[in-house]
Amino acid sequence: MTPKQNPTYHAPTVGILGGGQLGQMLIQAGIPYGIQFHVLDPDPEASCQPICAHFQTGSFKDADTVFEFGKNLDVVTIEIEHVSVDGLKRLAQHGVKVYPQPEVVALIQDKSLQKQFYAQHGLPTSDFVLVNDQDDLLSKATFPIVYKSAKDGYDGKGVQVLKHADQLPETSVFPGLLEELVDIDKELAVIVARSSTGESTTFPMVEMVFNPAANLVEELISPPHVSQQIQELGAKLAIQLAEKLEIVGLLAVEFFLNKKSNLLINEAAPRPHNSGHHTIKANAVSQFEQHIRAILGLPLGNTKAFGHAAMLNILGEPTENGPAQYSGVNPLLGIEGAFFHLYGKKQVKPYRKMGHVTLLAHSADELQQKIIQTKNLLKAHA
Amino acid sequence: MTPKQNPTYHAPTVGILGGGQLGQMLIQAGIPYGIQFHVLDPDPEASCQPICAHFQTGSFKDADTVFEFGKNLDVVTIEIEHVSVDGLKRLAQHGVKVYPQPEVVALIQDKSLQKQFYAQHGLPTSDFVLVNDQDDLLSKATFPIVYKSAKDGYDGKGVQVLKHADQLPETSVFPGLLEELVDIDKELAVIVARSSTGESTTFPMVEMVFNPAANLVEELISPPHVSQQIQELGAKLAIQLAEKLEIVGLLAVEFFLNKKSNLLINEAAPRPHNSGHHTIKANAVSQFEQHIRAILGLPLGNTKAFGHAAMLNILGEPTENGPAQYSGVNPLLGIEGAFFHLYGKKQVKPYRKMGHVTLLAHSADELQQKIIQTKNLLKAHA
Repeated sequence: MTPKQNPTYHAPTVGILGGGQLGQMLIQAGIPYGIQFHVLDPDPEASCQPICAHFQTGSFKDADTVFEFGKNLDVVTIEIEHVSVDGLKRLAQHGVKVYPQPEVVALIQDKSLQKQFYAQHGLPTSDFVLVNDQDDLLSKATFPIVYKSAKDGYDGKGVQVLKHADQLPETSVFPGLLEELVDIDKELAVIVARSSTGESTTFPMVEMVFNPAANLVEELISPPHVSQQIQELGAKLAIQLAEKLEIVGLLAVEFFLNKKSNLLINEAAPRPHNSGHHTIKANAVSQFEQHIRAILGLPLGNTKAFGHAAMLNILGEPTENGPAQYSGVNPLLGIEGAFFHLYGKKQVKPYRKMGHVTLLAHSADELQQKIIQTKNLLKAHA
Repeated sequence: MTPKQNPTYHAPTVGILGGGQLGQMLIQAGIPYGIQFHVLDPDPEASCQPICAHFQTGSFKDADTVFEFGKNLDVVTIEIEHVSVDGLKRLAQHGVKVYPQPEVVALIQDKSLQKQFYAQHGLPTSDFVLVNDQDDLLSKATFPIVYKSAKDGYDGKGVQVLKHADQLPETSVFPGLLEELVDIDKELAVIVARSSTGESTTFPMVEMVFNPAANLVEELISPPHVSQQIQELGAKLAIQLAEKLEIVGLLAVEFFLNKKSNLLINEAAPRPHNSGHHTIKANAVSQFEQHIRAILGLPLGNTKAFGHAAMLNILGEPTENGPAQYSGVNPLLGIEGAFFHLYGKKQVKPYRKMGHVTLLAHSADELQQKIIQTKNLLKAHA
């Protein structure tokens, strides 16, 4: 065995830009790897703070702050993509391993660039056209249509479905892109991990169900209610995209399955993703542990699921503000195969992601019964 | 549903006496419960320090230190039993929930009391006699025999097998007890959890294989190579012991199976235990998560294993001292179902527990093959 295949392992220092729940779960997964985590987040009460001795309050959008935070670390990664790409680039030039790479983060930050990338590489996506301003939009739109701001979208923010010309919002941020309104049958996602060694592997596809009021994932199930063929195609496209991006780390690829059974890439996130939280309980290696392996150049783990799984977000109740408490924990945990994961947020706010529930089952029917049984059981309120 | 069955959940503050690897894994398991952990340990570089914002350096053997550490917390628990019982008692009187209870910790700390407890409650254990000093020992011993100091034993320290009268050690600590030398066929263990609600449940029995040089568990497998009847008897005895002790939290019960197939209780530990580390990967609910549920009065989880599992300790190589590094990580993680868990210890020392390897398999044969394949693969050295 050559030294390259079997290097000596020194427990590394890893910096995370962002200290929210994705960072919290990344730290949890990284503990067995002996990693010393450092976290940068503007919120002194961020989810990572209680479990990170090297928690630093500051802006991950500021290049100097990012550089100073990461310059002495072995690896810097992200749990949110809206970070300073300049800061990441300076770290990479300084010799820090930055995964995902700054160029990938820059591409993903801009939905126009992201969409053009799919088109240029022959990856299936909905039709689109770039627009520079409101007049440009008016001249190119055929209603109904979707308008997306190129930058700063998150959890559906910056995305507008326009049914008529008079729905044009005055507050829209330009430039952006117009996309055909897809006749959606299902929303699906595949998380792929690509290691710094070039190895890639996908987690089983999941099906997402959205809460229309909050425009957040409300529930997901895996495996999804689609053919084996669609599942395999999703895995193939996710790997193709990861390889074409040459990303190191996780890439969560969201798809639309339209009513003609075409699988279209909607968008991608270069980090752990809400659509993979069930893997903490449902798979031997979670998305978070896989990300750790990928960015450390370790062999990727087996992504096979133990069985059927569902995940339900725990959102703050619609009118609740204040110190968080939870009802329904005892009856929930009394159900075999039901788990909760809180994000350690002290304050509850309307629709704030406070945690999630994971359900494990041996069949799709058993899973559906458990979803019905547990839905609205656990509530986050003040 | 009455309020008692469905109380509102407020993420609690939990103090842990001891900040070693058991504490590290307890924190890891407690993250989803939104717990704010506080840890007390004399070593500023203890395993818990990097993942605990409320890490406090100090002696858990000092009553005042223990009281001051815990007096404002919701729950105080332990990851080592050699703590100040007086400190625990003062906390309990102050209104802090102390689990395991101070009286249980006091009983377990004293091997003579522990052994008498088994005898008094009709629980099977090897024959024994209490001894006060060396003359007492000489007058009561029939060689070969085992001498155990009543207090401060740990990982086999304080236990001596005496083959002849002239082997009597001058350094032995008295009082203690003489035990018959059991004709051991196998060493087995069952971890039981008992909740503050009175609910009890056991993890599947494990079989332990010891490293004679280090006198530490080197490898364990689950399920063990014993009959279903013995496994059920072990579970029954573990629950009986937990209930008679009225312990809240985990109790790890170690057994001898003698060559006449009698199952004898050897000793018990009122905390997470080395014989349950595989449950992090091999079960939906680990021993650590179960301990959290037990001390918070939450419903206990399903302890069924996903399949066959083994655990191998990663001990410091016999002559190594210095900053820790590891060889063999890449080939190990390249094996499907093989995982490692490091304890974040900066310094390696001979036979120091640096981490463990977990192996998952679908059959006993596959498990044995993986044990052979991985044994001595991962080494901790300077």
